[in-house]
Amino acid sequence: VLAAPAIAQANPKVTWRITSSFPKALDTIFGAAEVMSKYISEASDGNFTIQVFPAGELVPGLEAADAVASGTVEACHTVPYYFWGKDPTYALGAAVPFSLNARQMNAWFYHGGGIDLMNEFYATQNIIAFPAGNTGVQMGGWFRKELTSVADMQGLKMRIGGFAGKVLEKLGVVPQQIAGGDIYPALEKGTIDATEWVGPYDDEKLGFYKVAPYYYYPGFWEGGPAIATMINLQKWAELPPAYQAMLKMGCQVANADMLSNYDYKNPTALKSLVANGAQLRPFPQDVMQAAFEAANATYAEIGSTNAMFKKIKDSQDAFKKDAYLWAQIAEYNYDVFMMTQQQAGKL
Amino acid sequence: VLAAPAIAQANPKVTWRITSSFPKALDTIFGAAEVMSKYISEASDGNFTIQVFPAGELVPGLEAADAVASGTVEACHTVPYYFWGKDPTYALGAAVPFSLNARQMNAWFYHGGGIDLMNEFYATQNIIAFPAGNTGVQMGGWFRKELTSVADMQGLKMRIGGFAGKVLEKLGVVPQQIAGGDIYPALEKGTIDATEWVGPYDDEKLGFYKVAPYYYYPGFWEGGPAIATMINLQKWAELPPAYQAMLKMGCQVANADMLSNYDYKNPTALKSLVANGAQLRPFPQDVMQAAFEAANATYAEIGSTNAMFKKIKDSQDAFKKDAYLWAQIAEYNYDVFMMTQQQAGKL
Repeated sequence: VLAAPAIAQANPKVTWRITSSFPKALDTIFGAAEVMSKYISEASDGNFTIQVFPAGELVPGLEAADAVASGTVEACHTVPYYFWGKDPTYALGAAVPFSLNARQMNAWFYHGGGIDLMNEFYATQNIIAFPAGNTGVQMGGWFRKELTSVADMQGLKMRIGGFAGKVLEKLGVVPQQIAGGDIYPALEKGTIDATEWVGPYDDEKLGFYKVAPYYYYPGFWEGGPAIATMINLQKWAELPPAYQAMLKMGCQVANADMLSNYDYKNPTALKSLVANGAQLRPFPQDVMQAAFEAANATYAEIGSTNAMFKKIKDSQDAFKKDAYLWAQIAEYNYDVFMMTQQQAGKL
Repeated sequence: VLAAPAIAQANPKVTWRITSSFPKALDTIFGAAEVMSKYISEASDGNFTIQVFPAGELVPGLEAADAVASGTVEACHTVPYYFWGKDPTYALGAAVPFSLNARQMNAWFYHGGGIDLMNEFYATQNIIAFPAGNTGVQMGGWFRKELTSVADMQGLKMRIGGFAGKVLEKLGVVPQQIAGGDIYPALEKGTIDATEWVGPYDDEKLGFYKVAPYYYYPGFWEGGPAIATMINLQKWAELPPAYQAMLKMGCQVANADMLSNYDYKNPTALKSLVANGAQLRPFPQDVMQAAFEAANATYAEIGSTNAMFKKIKDSQDAFKKDAYLWAQIAEYNYDVFMMTQQQAGKL
């Protein structure tokens, strides 16, 4: 009788579909899901495959979380704040105005208990999620006219996403929901006065500088917006532990890699935009300050009736306070010295 | 005749040893190698195991690269600048004075061709390496007396690592090589005037604030020091492709995770140090400026005879120039606004 050969545990065949909330044209964001998928396929010898579909092919971008919760797809790659209308707690997994920057968001997620806190909430939605991308601080967007003070925000028709729009309403802004492809003509005709999008690399492709040349910064509603891979809870539980480990690694790789991709591509795009006529402008300080107060008022309102929102926001805020103290020491002084050398033409 | 069952390709047993250049007491740095090892073990169902040894157990910390090159161990987890004496090009894979910060270093590594450029050099050393950790901007260290100007650097006996010491020599500093455990008594007795270490979290453990209370910032010689996993070239080539993918993912996870770990722990440690008597001081601007010019002179000297060093440094510098232009727009203005709120007690 031949002894059975000792066979190490094999990688079982698992085929998943992931719906992205983004089009392929946003190659940095969409591409992060592909980075994740490619690594996982390689690490499993092609046995755990995750096919990435652009928004709208399987599921509309803004229905991605529902599709995951119901099990229509195993997972999605999305910005959690898209779903703030279902529960504003979703937004805390992505970005809310004047919150953590990208490095701080990751510190909170991976070492401050943030992933577990968010998953306590996501579990109520039949979802488990892991951070899987970040854009860094976004730009404030494109304006047809210059802003001189917070009074100019009154009645301003601006294309801006959900939760941030709710905050800016307190300043008199009239938020507009317009799909990506329809923004340019609306801006050109003057149907809207302003639009936000992402940052130089993505914004350049849409050509907004031609019709709304004032390019404001910073995008104070997106200090470190986190993208997430959301996974159906049952599908997650069915995965072999080795595939769970690959998926968690793949998400963290996608998370880091997207930020590096933007950090590498934004500088060149910024120079190109300015060469083509974009006029860089900082938001007037009274706009920033009024928005800061409006954001805090909004958090207090939501927190008074939504205990989970309050619990998670309090956790982020406690870290934010200390993180922005420490940020003033080594990082700030190093960067400011280097910026000074850049301005002096010495870099 | 029974048909052979269809068996997916199994994960072969592979056992590696990785020598860290750090003691276990530096839990954030040492721990990053363990994060990598743990994920890889999980992803391979325990078949690809990488045991992490602290510095000195298999190989002294500063001999890690040699041990990898010769195949004594399969891999090491180290700071490449430790080996600048063999070739200063090593230092470019970690940090040199006034270079890229942590996010910029990662942008250059993963999207600016930096990993490939470094591996072109490492291949001449029989090594392939991937980034596997970052501390963020370090602190400038602990000084027994206050500095008033660059003149105070003349004759200053400072414990400081290799390449940075070479640059500071041009300011009159007398660099001292002292192992971690011997620094405190040397500082207490006044055998040395100052020491650099890492940042608040690691520095607090060694208690330097008791004998050298002036805590200077920023550590301009370490703007974004990258830790690396260096792998013997033949051992890498022998790995199955799936394990190569796991290892690359594991390194990128360790890289991101170490920075998040420091970002989470440093703020609390800074507050504790200040409460215990540490006196925070920025380096005088003329110290920064003189060190900047000394660093550039050093790069020109080395580049004139070392083509690989020049090629890689030029690549970093080209990106640095644009990156610090873009950094002045969205990131800087967002962070400064938040720091202003922190100072006003509004966070």
